[in-house]
Amino acid sequence: MPEVKPIIPVILSGGSGTRLWPLSIPEQPKQLLPLTAEETMLQLTARRTMGERFARPIVVANAFHADQIEEQLAAVEVETQALILEPTGRNTAPAIALAAIAAGGGNAPILVMPSDHVIADVDAFRTAIHAALPLVQEGWLVTFGIAPDAPETGYGWIKVGEALAEGVHRVDRFVEKPPRDKAEEMLASGDHAWNGGIFLFRADMYLGALSVFAPAMLVAAQRAMEKARREGKRIWPDAGEFAQSPSDSIDYAVMEKAPRVAVVPVAMGWSDVGSWDALHAISECDAHGNVSRGDVIMIDAENCLVRSEAGKRIALVGVQDLIVVAAGDDILVLPRGRSQDIRKIIEAMKR
Amino acid sequence: MPEVKPIIPVILSGGSGTRLWPLSIPEQPKQLLPLTAEETMLQLTARRTMGERFARPIVVANAFHADQIEEQLAAVEVETQALILEPTGRNTAPAIALAAIAAGGGNAPILVMPSDHVIADVDAFRTAIHAALPLVQEGWLVTFGIAPDAPETGYGWIKVGEALAEGVHRVDRFVEKPPRDKAEEMLASGDHAWNGGIFLFRADMYLGALSVFAPAMLVAAQRAMEKARREGKRIWPDAGEFAQSPSDSIDYAVMEKAPRVAVVPVAMGWSDVGSWDALHAISECDAHGNVSRGDVIMIDAENCLVRSEAGKRIALVGVQDLIVVAAGDDILVLPRGRSQDIRKIIEAMKR
Repeated sequence: MPEVKPIIPVILSGGSGTRLWPLSIPEQPKQLLPLTAEETMLQLTARRTMGERFARPIVVANAFHADQIEEQLAAVEVETQALILEPTGRNTAPAIALAAIAAGGGNAPILVMPSDHVIADVDAFRTAIHAALPLVQEGWLVTFGIAPDAPETGYGWIKVGEALAEGVHRVDRFVEKPPRDKAEEMLASGDHAWNGGIFLFRADMYLGALSVFAPAMLVAAQRAMEKARREGKRIWPDAGEFAQSPSDSIDYAVMEKAPRVAVVPVAMGWSDVGSWDALHAISECDAHGNVSRGDVIMIDAENCLVRSEAGKRIALVGVQDLIVVAAGDDILVLPRGRSQDIRKIIEAMKR
Repeated sequence: MPEVKPIIPVILSGGSGTRLWPLSIPEQPKQLLPLTAEETMLQLTARRTMGERFARPIVVANAFHADQIEEQLAAVEVETQALILEPTGRNTAPAIALAAIAAGGGNAPILVMPSDHVIADVDAFRTAIHAALPLVQEGWLVTFGIAPDAPETGYGWIKVGEALAEGVHRVDRFVEKPPRDKAEEMLASGDHAWNGGIFLFRADMYLGALSVFAPAMLVAAQRAMEKARREGKRIWPDAGEFAQSPSDSIDYAVMEKAPRVAVVPVAMGWSDVGSWDALHAISECDAHGNVSRGDVIMIDAENCLVRSEAGKRIALVGVQDLIVVAAGDDILVLPRGRSQDIRKIIEAMKR
């Protein structure tokens, strides 16, 4: 067995989602907000992989957020080895390629994590990482499988196959964003997991897989990094070269095609906090089922999620199961269970 | 029958209610807001009694609002004969005394109107005034009775007695803010009306009644007006003298005690707009039962009242029967039917 190298965390901070509008906006997306704790999602993500088993992280982000990211990481004493500032978004597969190249491209394991997920049980996460490492060192690409508790149609699913080692299974099949009936079937089957979007593999194995399944992506990433501008920890890949890369997710471009892909099912209190409902579900409620933050007055209110940004006061009387969020000049009001409908608001605002 | 003098409208603008918080605040109470139309409640009230039958109005107000009142009346080309600026609030009876004195105290009829009520059918109102005038000229104190459509416990009620003339009845009894069961009884009886807070009587008859039933009030008002400071149309009654007046409503101090009190029952689309629910009830709804004003986005919303002040945007999805108001730095959310509970919020904010 080869020498165990420290794991290099790769934090993907490319998202600019609007699913938590009006709090999450392109200038300050979800990962840069303190949604579930005093610390931001990015800070929590970075601190999750500090310790002797881990090297300093590589962060891949939108250039627009460079200052905020450095400030937030400095505030929790996380020192990066590189901050890669994408000239344009090309989805996750090329972003991870940039990071794998920045990591040196060798046999060091890289742990790819979205910057905006919650993991409540960090010990379980680390145990899962530990379980995966021997297969990773043998060249397997590993994903982490979340035990599903709802027939989610917005996630990718994994059919968990035969055991390869203690706690590690072959991926039998990926199922991307299934229809409702298929999701319910998979939930009932007991042998499916959600694809949590967290990956562990050797940098060289990932780049090698790209060379087989998405060579144009590998070439574009390599050229962009060769011509990159560097300043301290900041790396600006060459915009012209990177623009040549196809845009695709790691799931489609690599994981669903590669032959040696494993999954580590893990119950670790995972959430992608993909909606206000999801945030309510993972937040600690008061005795009335309410979750509030900021200057909020609630009288006879139950099971509400209320967030008020600085300088605004929200008063609620006699309401149940309501989500109320005030941020900037915007105020959102919708019932729990409807937070997917935020896209309708975004569309209405565009018109 | 004596010569018919023009009626002097007396507009009471003393209120600083919080029932329409956060829109209505002490600095800009309900009567100074455009709640039901493009014009403010004060403007609508003043314009309701323009015409050859009416003299220029006398306005009694909180000194703090003097500029706003003058600007609003000028904007709708209403010229006052006096703007009496109360040094302190002493309820309606002393305020009306100040106005009766400013009117000259003679036999001219004065029409006392709160500045923050809605009257949808102005013709019906004027017809009621016309019906009352002969008795007013004979010295009767007249109030207008609103046909009740709910067992309101927050209003004063009137038992309508025998007919004195076409459309004018003796007041059999006043019932102040009854308990619920009593209100239901009166509603069912068919011979009760709400006391609308609008009065018509000769200035001298009112002052004479005060002399009998509330002499200290009369003396204080007279002395305050004798020592008043005057500047253009503005009159500042002497603060020290006016402070000597007892504080009481015209109902308690005079109407419930005087022997010759009449009521003109009238259906004129009256509302005191005493709550957000009341405002919703009198507002024109869209096809989904919604009433909105300002920058509001509604998707799948029904029977909601939504008001957004300048610079704020409210987005609602999938909610029913909700009141949402954003003004200043405050946001109010409560279900329809609960708007009386605003006082609970005000209390909570004080703590």
